Amino acid sequence: MAFDALETPFGKVDRIIGGSGTYAAWSASNFVKTINAVSIVGGDFPQEEVKALEERGVDFDGVEVVQDGKSFFWSGRYHLDMNTRDTLVTDLNVLLQFDPKLPAKYREPEFVMLGNLAPAVQISVLNQLQKRPKLIIADTMNFWMDNTMEDLKKMLGMVDLLMVNDSEARQLSGEYSIVKAAKKIQAMGPKYVVIKKGEHGALLFYENRIFSAPALPLEDVFDPTGAGDTFAGGFIGYLARINDTSFESMKAAVIIGSAMASYCVEKFGPTRLKELTAVDIDNRVSEFVALANFEIR
Amino acid sequence: MAFDALETPFGKVDRIIGGSGTYAAWSASNFVKTINAVSIVGGDFPQEEVKALEERGVDFDGVEVVQDGKSFFWSGRYHLDMNTRDTLVTDLNVLLQFDPKLPAKYREPEFVMLGNLAPAVQISVLNQLQKRPKLIIADTMNFWMDNTMEDLKKMLGMVDLLMVNDSEARQLSGEYSIVKAAKKIQAMGPKYVVIKKGEHGALLFYENRIFSAPALPLEDVFDPTGAGDTFAGGFIGYLARINDTSFESMKAAVIIGSAMASYCVEKFGPTRLKELTAVDIDNRVSEFVALANFEIR
Repeated sequence: MAFDALETPFGKVDRIIGGSGTYAAWSASNFVKTINAVSIVGGDFPQEEVKALEERGVDFDGVEVVQDGKSFFWSGRYHLDMNTRDTLVTDLNVLLQFDPKLPAKYREPEFVMLGNLAPAVQISVLNQLQKRPKLIIADTMNFWMDNTMEDLKKMLGMVDLLMVNDSEARQLSGEYSIVKAAKKIQAMGPKYVVIKKGEHGALLFYENRIFSAPALPLEDVFDPTGAGDTFAGGFIGYLARINDTSFESMKAAVIIGSAMASYCVEKFGPTRLKELTAVDIDNRVSEFVALANFEIR
Repeated sequence: MAFDALETPFGKVDRIIGGSGTYAAWSASNFVKTINAVSIVGGDFPQEEVKALEERGVDFDGVEVVQDGKSFFWSGRYHLDMNTRDTLVTDLNVLLQFDPKLPAKYREPEFVMLGNLAPAVQISVLNQLQKRPKLIIADTMNFWMDNTMEDLKKMLGMVDLLMVNDSEARQLSGEYSIVKAAKKIQAMGPKYVVIKKGEHGALLFYENRIFSAPALPLEDVFDPTGAGDTFAGGFIGYLARINDTSFESMKAAVIIGSAMASYCVEKFGPTRLKELTAVDIDNRVSEFVALANFEIR
């Protein structure tokens, strides 16, 4: 849970709420309550943001507040193609001292999402659980591949599903072919692999089966920040609601995650996510059905 | 109808049958007979290739043979990502004198595919038709945008559907967004636009509706030559067989075209296409159904 400063071809914001946990919680809260958040913020993190999420069923008992510290801050500028961006500032701030301690009531979750953080922190959360969850999904990024590969491999051995983008999958596996990359990642531990391809949709791999989800073709992407975390939140929130982890349900969850992400990019930060109604989500999911549906005769 | 020399990361061939018409005819012949071919070849074009296509129901009366001329020859080398290639040699040969004259029996087709050639040649074929076909689809490429844009615009005003890849769509429209690009191309004439995205599948645009077809995720692409023409041949061959041009049918046709293209890239040139049985095609189409099918509950 953090602050971002964002610059896109459509405008800029100097300070807006961000962070993997924030996006994932906003997204998942459309499908399931209670969501147990684990994070660390500074005394600067706005009370109204906490309240808004609490009203959506997010529990903050696992969010450590360092009153005299500052929240993580990231500043980035997107290029015209919206697929590449320059990081301008990364201030770790309170994240430097993040050593999550799960409240007792958090220790038997059925569905766990590990946002993109140091693999050692992700592992520490899993080690505090008192029973094996039904589903553990994890995100990661190139930084951890470059710097903490041993920890990352250990984490991969503990999770059910890894969610990465195509370039991350290539780096992690050393394979250019996405199919080969997914197979290698599956061999590292996760039975399921989701590879996100931005405007080209997403692929879900399980055993020798593949599901290909389209992306909604958008005229403009206003701000892609948080789209991946919003996808993950919708994905796991939907699975938690239907309380099922079959491959068929995961295919639907990829569509739900894609629908949520397609809303996220319409406005800066989580602004658009905060406005969404159940009807909005149903309508967008119907658009995906129309987009992907065909019948051979 | 031509010869190609091809070099891919998997090997090379010095001389293999190629050309838009050849790939499209092999592909379409799985769905419909008779196919009236319009092309020009030299005396070097092998009789056994002609015979093999005739046995598949391809009529060669519209294929001019210049006995003392040489067939078009193209030589290219693909890069490791298979999305980019260098042209090593382009010998137009008999294409320089190509001025198609349609046999009388060719002049009332229901379904017409204009392969990628000079727009003036494409227009000349359409001008020889005695009634408006049910469906005219056309391919083109950046070379014609750079050199014969006025002719190309005239051609676009005469066809129902344009089939291009994403970079061609961007160049033709001047829009980076694929959705905006498709809208601009629709405004130039074609009611339907198909944008091929290689390993990311294809998009079909009609009015404000969009269909997104996946590509089969392949471990290896052996040789992408002819995949676009094979797609087009499967697409129009299927529509001709069911004799329908509704949007619903076109969605299915995009899947059929994608299935045919996914076979094409498995071996050099049209080699794999020549081997295919009806069972092979059904199986591959079923793979696409499994790949794209989902149900939200």
